[in-house]
Amino acid sequence: MTRNLDQLSLEDASLRDGLKWSQTSPGVIPSWVADMDFPVPQAVREAVTRRAETDLGYPSWLDEPSVGPLAEAFAERMETRYGFRPDPGHVRSYSDINQALQVLLHLTTRPGDTVALHTPAYHPFLDTIAEMGRRLLSIPMLPDGDGWRFEVPDEPAAVLLLVNPHNPTGRVFTAEELGALAEYAERHDALVLSDEIHADLTYGPQSHIPFGTLLPARTVTLTSATKAFNMGGIRCSVAHLGAPAVRDAVNRQPAHIYGAPNLLGVEATVAAWRHGDAWLAEVLAILDRNRRLIAERLPSRVGYRIPQATYLGWLDLGFLDEDPAAYLEREARVRLNPGPLFGPGGEGYARINFGTSEPILEEILTRISTALS
Amino acid sequence: MTRNLDQLSLEDASLRDGLKWSQTSPGVIPSWVADMDFPVPQAVREAVTRRAETDLGYPSWLDEPSVGPLAEAFAERMETRYGFRPDPGHVRSYSDINQALQVLLHLTTRPGDTVALHTPAYHPFLDTIAEMGRRLLSIPMLPDGDGWRFEVPDEPAAVLLLVNPHNPTGRVFTAEELGALAEYAERHDALVLSDEIHADLTYGPQSHIPFGTLLPARTVTLTSATKAFNMGGIRCSVAHLGAPAVRDAVNRQPAHIYGAPNLLGVEATVAAWRHGDAWLAEVLAILDRNRRLIAERLPSRVGYRIPQATYLGWLDLGFLDEDPAAYLEREARVRLNPGPLFGPGGEGYARINFGTSEPILEEILTRISTALS
Ligand SMILES: Cc1ncc(COP(=O)(O)O)c(C=O)c1O
Ligand SMILES: Cc1ncc(COP(=O)(O)O)c(C=O)c1O
Repeated sequence: MTRNLDQLSLEDASLRDGLKWSQTSPGVIPSWVADMDFPVPQAVREAVTRRAETDLGYPSWLDEPSVGPLAEAFAERMETRYGFRPDPGHVRSYSDINQALQVLLHLTTRPGDTVALHTPAYHPFLDTIAEMGRRLLSIPMLPDGDGWRFEVPDEPAAVLLLVNPHNPTGRVFTAEELGALAEYAERHDALVLSDEIHADLTYGPQSHIPFGTLLPARTVTLTSATKAFNMGGIRCSVAHLGAPAVRDAVNRQPAHIYGAPNLLGVEATVAAWRHGDAWLAEVLAILDRNRRLIAERLPSRVGYRIPQATYLGWLDLGFLDEDPAAYLEREARVRLNPGPLFGPGGEGYARINFGTSEPILEEILTRISTALS
Repeated sequence: MTRNLDQLSLEDASLRDGLKWSQTSPGVIPSWVADMDFPVPQAVREAVTRRAETDLGYPSWLDEPSVGPLAEAFAERMETRYGFRPDPGHVRSYSDINQALQVLLHLTTRPGDTVALHTPAYHPFLDTIAEMGRRLLSIPMLPDGDGWRFEVPDEPAAVLLLVNPHNPTGRVFTAEELGALAEYAERHDALVLSDEIHADLTYGPQSHIPFGTLLPARTVTLTSATKAFNMGGIRCSVAHLGAPAVRDAVNRQPAHIYGAPNLLGVEATVAAWRHGDAWLAEVLAILDRNRRLIAERLPSRVGYRIPQATYLGWLDLGFLDEDPAAYLEREARVRLNPGPLFGPGGEGYARINFGTSEPILEEILTRISTALS
């Protein structure tokens, strides 16, 4: 199955996620959903199927707050891939990272408190900050040659919400940058919530550095297997509560109020983390080719800095007179995510999802190029 | 597969849930876990497998608070089976009923508020009331001939937490009893949280009456497919928010803070509700035989009122000098749930799980009878 990942025809892929979203606008290719078009690893399919065929009852780890098998698989993966040694006992599971963020902001901050975040930003995080009445301290990502840079703010924040690798720019923060952010967090006594969901989608030679290796006792690491292994629907994410005060706050809550991990999500995650790396290597090779293909195919006036991670491209189309996504949906029949959704710095941009097969990506890029020519 | 449900040998069943728990105490038959020993309906297995084989990505109902397909399947089932017509738009999903209860108590009451509950009670609800600092107003279930009765309290309560069918007694409340409770709720302006998770496990001639048919605008109905269809691990439950104030309170919360329904749990639930009824009829026939077998096999000095619903039997072993569950684990090598866990009225009792095959149940009953003789 995985051998043929790259030979998906438009028709094959239309069975799957990317194209299921096109039903709402016939003829428009969706390139905005945060899924890839690839089938999940065989190990995941097998684990889920096996579980459904034997026993969907209460799991034996039901009353373990740290969800034994999930915590073990997470800790092992962090150590072998990234040299980060989380304590499995400090793991908690949430249905998804957006839930984890809202719970943790609720338990550790109050309305009016400041949350520092690189912008443009993964838009649901902006929504959460607004919805929960927290104050956004924007850390602008500044175009810089082939890449991006930022300046550490002077102003304090209660929380540094770090998204590394960064969405939407695809930037992988360097040791030096992370060091400067750590220094900032220490100086202002900020809690660091580090969303590392895209870590496994980092392209060499860059490498991902977990923030938990820098400031273990000040960091909550948030991650899941759902991005890299393409299973956003399973709802199973991990929060490693490195900060003792956060652990205390979480442990003081009623035991069930934030829900409980689902058996099939745990099975899928453990299978992906323990047995999915050959699949992942193949997917990364496809994505690596795709991220370069965008640079080759798009007209040179489109600003595009090849991402160092993720299957997301951040396109500067500021030369257009209108919102680029609206323009492209109408003129190119391709739907991208509108840049303004991503907050400050998003104006004039659109986000493309290149987690698809070569023919589909070629078609998308041809349509865009034609509409811009 | 379902044809052979009843031919499970001890060995077959040991693959499954009931017996997986025996690993902790070799030689002891567990009859305390809240799962049955039967494989899930084929439609559930197929739905889960099919989903794993096509697409585990974000579902198209991701941003529908009422979880479209789940709400539709729930509403349809309530109407066809019970003549209850919930509004699909008022459905919300929680990972499990214990979560839903904690969220709803959190949003609608304050510490010190009174929660009325029939006792003995499903023990996690007692834990929640204590943990959240609410005050328990016990409505004692009183042995009454072959069954149980209760008296409506004089004292007011902020919430009537109704468990119908009742766990651990297996009592199905009558129209008259529910009417008296409705009158009580109206008189004291109490919110009714009605846990009807065992409704599909009601034996004729009794029939289940959803409390939502009595007081639609004062009732939150809580249910899931996890008990009747034996899939406690999937974490997918439904709350129908009939009470407008509860809807408002829920809708004012940050959108993600209580988590999101998982795709596989939704698939499994919809498959069970739409295509599981032939399986359910077979299981009910087995359980019906089993609930009578207990009466036939146990010595007459064991107090046992045949339950009208559930796969749980509530055994009065008050003639023993010690906690019956402790006695039976030691002397009969069978583990039941200790009665005292279920709060007031639990002393001298133990709860047996008869959701298993005939040979296993025979073995359990033989062991108990021998130990008591
Ligand atoms: C930075 C980032 N965090 C988190 C998520 C996923 O969040 P969730 O686990 O809530 O689906 C995404 C998905 O696109 C993301 O890009
Ligand atoms: C009365 C009652 N409510 C709820 C549940 C299940 O709760 P949850 O959905 O939290 O697993 C049970 C399980 O035994 C039960 O007996």
